[in-house]
Amino acid sequence: MSPTEPAPPSFSAVEVIAAKRDRRGLSREQIDWVLGAYTREEVADEQMAALAMAILLNGMDAAETAHWTQAMIDSGEVLDFGDVGRPLVDKHSTGGVGDKITLPLAPLVAACGAAVPQLSGRGLGHTGGTLDKLEAIPGWRASLTTEQIRAQLVEVGAVVCATTPTLAPADRRLYALRDVTGTVESVPLIASSIMSKKLAEGTGGLVLDVKVGSGAFMKTFERAGELADAMTAIGAAHGLPTTALLTDMSRPLGRCVGNALEVAESVDVLRGGGPDDVVALTVALAGEMLTLAGLPDADPAAVLASGAAYEVWERMIAAQGGDPSAPLPVARHVETVTADRSGVFAGADALAVGTAAWRLGAGRARKEDPVQATAGVRMLVGPGDEVRAGTPLLELHTDTPERLADARRLLTGAALPVDADPPPERALVLDVRRAG
Amino acid sequence: MSPTEPAPPSFSAVEVIAAKRDRRGLSREQIDWVLGAYTREEVADEQMAALAMAILLNGMDAAETAHWTQAMIDSGEVLDFGDVGRPLVDKHSTGGVGDKITLPLAPLVAACGAAVPQLSGRGLGHTGGTLDKLEAIPGWRASLTTEQIRAQLVEVGAVVCATTPTLAPADRRLYALRDVTGTVESVPLIASSIMSKKLAEGTGGLVLDVKVGSGAFMKTFERAGELADAMTAIGAAHGLPTTALLTDMSRPLGRCVGNALEVAESVDVLRGGGPDDVVALTVALAGEMLTLAGLPDADPAAVLASGAAYEVWERMIAAQGGDPSAPLPVARHVETVTADRSGVFAGADALAVGTAAWRLGAGRARKEDPVQATAGVRMLVGPGDEVRAGTPLLELHTDTPERLADARRLLTGAALPVDADPPPERALVLDVRRAG
Repeated sequence: MSPTEPAPPSFSAVEVIAAKRDRRGLSREQIDWVLGAYTREEVADEQMAALAMAILLNGMDAAETAHWTQAMIDSGEVLDFGDVGRPLVDKHSTGGVGDKITLPLAPLVAACGAAVPQLSGRGLGHTGGTLDKLEAIPGWRASLTTEQIRAQLVEVGAVVCATTPTLAPADRRLYALRDVTGTVESVPLIASSIMSKKLAEGTGGLVLDVKVGSGAFMKTFERAGELADAMTAIGAAHGLPTTALLTDMSRPLGRCVGNALEVAESVDVLRGGGPDDVVALTVALAGEMLTLAGLPDADPAAVLASGAAYEVWERMIAAQGGDPSAPLPVARHVETVTADRSGVFAGADALAVGTAAWRLGAGRARKEDPVQATAGVRMLVGPGDEVRAGTPLLELHTDTPERLADARRLLTGAALPVDADPPPERALVLDVRRAG
Repeated sequence: MSPTEPAPPSFSAVEVIAAKRDRRGLSREQIDWVLGAYTREEVADEQMAALAMAILLNGMDAAETAHWTQAMIDSGEVLDFGDVGRPLVDKHSTGGVGDKITLPLAPLVAACGAAVPQLSGRGLGHTGGTLDKLEAIPGWRASLTTEQIRAQLVEVGAVVCATTPTLAPADRRLYALRDVTGTVESVPLIASSIMSKKLAEGTGGLVLDVKVGSGAFMKTFERAGELADAMTAIGAAHGLPTTALLTDMSRPLGRCVGNALEVAESVDVLRGGGPDDVVALTVALAGEMLTLAGLPDADPAAVLASGAAYEVWERMIAAQGGDPSAPLPVARHVETVTADRSGVFAGADALAVGTAAWRLGAGRARKEDPVQATAGVRMLVGPGDEVRAGTPLLELHTDTPERLADARRLLTGAALPVDADPPPERALVLDVRRAG
C-alpha cells in the first residue's frame, strides 16, 4: 500500500453479522472487509456461517449483492481474453436433468464467429456436470492453464474446461461452507456465486439458462424469476451484458441422462439429428449469445445443419486431448423398464429420472466421489408416444448392478405417467429476462 | 445401550438447520440429537452457528426452549443437594452495574434457614462477576469440589463458587460460539443458557433478578419481561418453582462499582448500614427466595439488622479460605470527578459508570483477561443530593493510571446529570413474574 493511500476500514466480524441480523444494510466497506478477512482466514467459518444464515433470512438488496459479487471477484484473479480476436460470450445453466446443451452450444457459437470461454464446475446431486460428461470421451482433460485457454480461444473459438483455483477463491470456500450449513438456498448468495465466477472469467456477454421445475434447483417460476432478475441485475451493475432465459425442467432434456449417453446425444445434434428439444434450446441460446456478441445476423440453425459446428466440436475435443472419433464407453449392465398399462406417454418426471441416473452412478453425493462414465438413463419413448402395457419405456445403464433396484424404485407410477389423452404441448422457453 | 432399547433417532445437521431456517418447529428428537452431536463434536461449530442464527431470527416456542434446556442439562452432570437438611433456593441476576446483591443475600437467606448453592460464572464486559468481587478478599478461592459444596451447605448454608466444568458443557461451548457469531441476543438461547446451569446445579427454587435499563443487557421493560417469562416458563416446564423480579438498572446499585469496593459496601450492608437501594433489593429478593423455600414467615429485614447474616458471611468466606477481617486491597491511583455546575444530582447513568469501571480495570474484555481487585468507581453523592460547581461527584480507582483518561471521557455531561429539580422517585422493583 502506498503511503498516500488510506488504510481500508476495519470491522469486527460480530459487528458485520449484527448489522445483517438486525436488518441494517451492509456497506460496501463492510462487505469488502468481511470477504477479504474470510479469504485471509481472519474471519472464522462459524462467523461466516452465522452471516450466511442472516443473509438467507434477511436478504440482501441489489446494491449489497453487487458489492458482495465484486468482493468475491476481488478475492482472486480476473482473466482477460480481450485479445483473442473474436467477441467473447458465455452461457451458464443453473443445472438440469439431461442438460447437455453446452456440448453442442459452445462449438455452434464458435462456428458462428464468437469465442466461448466456458469455465465450469463439477456436478453435485441429481444434475450432472458438463466436465463429468466430457470426461467420458477417451483422453479428454478438463484442466487447462490460462495460456492454453487463450490459445484454444484463438485457434478453435470454444473452450469448456475446469475453473482455475485462482478464480473467486472466496466463493469456493463460501460455497463449501454453505453446503454444510443449510445456507445454499439464498437467492443473493446463489446469484453472486454464479456471477462472480463468470465475471472473473472475463466473458464479454452472458446468457443464463435458469431452469424451472421438478428437476431444477428452483421448483417454481417465481423463484426462478427472482434468481434470473438477481443475476441480470449483477451483470448490469458490473457492465456485463446479461440475458436470462427461464426454461422448462419438469422433464429431462432430450432422451439421454448420464455422461457418455449425453455426449452421444450431443454428437447426434451436432451432426444434424438428435431430439427436437435439445436442438431447439441449443439454437435459442445460441441466438441470444450471438446477439450479445454483436453478431445478431448469424443463423445458428443453418450453421448447425451445415456441419460447421460439428467440425468445431472435433477440434475443441482434440485440443484438450480427447479423441472425438473414439467409441464411447458402454455400461456393463442395461435393464429395461416397461409400461404397466396402455395409453399415451406423458413424459418422464425430471427429478425422478435425474435421481435414478445419479443413483446408477452418473452423479456424486460428495465432491470427492467418482462418477461412472457409462451410468444413466436412456428414454426409449417421448411425450405423446402411444404405448401398451409391456412397451419398453426406458433403459437403466450402470456398471454396478446392485444400484439397479434403487433406480427402479424411483421410476414407477407418477414418475412415468401413461395417460388416456396426449400431454399438452411443452413450452421450452418460459420467459426472457434482461436487466431493467 | 441395552439390546431392548431402541437407538435414538439420528439426523443430519443440515436437516435440523433447514427445519429452523424454514420456520418449522424443532422436535424434541432433533434438539436432543443436535446438542448431543455438538457436544461429541460431530456437529461442527459452523453448523451450530448457522442454527443459532436461525433460532435468533426465527425464534423457538416454549416447548422447543424447554427441550433445548433439557438437552443442555443432559450434556453433563446434575448435582443433587437434597440431603443437606435445609430447603435449597438460589438467585440469578442477568447482570447489572454495582450488582453486588449476592454478597449480602446468600448469607442472609442462609441465616433465615434456607441453603443457597450459588454456582456462578465470571463477569464479561461492563457488568462485573460475583466471583471476581469475592476474589478481592485475601485468600478466598472460587473453585470447590461437589463434596466441598455439599459440606459447606450443611455447615454454613451458603456457597458462592465457580460452576464445575461438568455442568451443562454444551452450554459452555455454545455460549463461547454465540459470543463470536453475533448470536447472543436471542431470548430463548439466553433463557435456556441460564436455566440449564441453574437446573443442573440442583436448586429447589429460583429467584431471577432481571435487570432493565441502560446498564442492563435488556434495555427495555418489554425485552426484560420477555426474558423473564421465557425463564419462568422453563422453570415451570422442569418443575422448578421460579419467580422473576424485573428491577431497575438505569442507575448503578449502591455507591460502589468495582471488585474490592463492592465487597466493602456489601460488608456495610451486612453490618446494618450501606446504601438504601442495596438493602432494599437484598431484602426483597431474600423474601422471594424464602417464600420459594417454604419459609414465608422468615423476616429477612430483622435478621439482617440482627447481625446474624454477617456471622454467616464470615463463616462463608472463611470456609473458602478467605480472611473476612483482612483489609481489602486499595487502588494506587484515585482521582475525583467534580460537578461542572450547581443543582440537584439526578443519579449517574449505569452504562457510563459500568463502562468506566470496566476501562479502569474492574472488568474484562476477553474471558482470559485478568481483572484488578482495586479498580472501580465510588460515587460520593446520591440522586437528589444538592451539588455546586466543583463538588466532588465520584472517585475513579485504578492501579494503572493510563486508564484514567478513558474513564473520565465516559463520565461527563448526560452520564452525570445535574438538574434544576430533584429526580423522580426511583422504583427499584418494576414487576414480578411467575409462570402462568
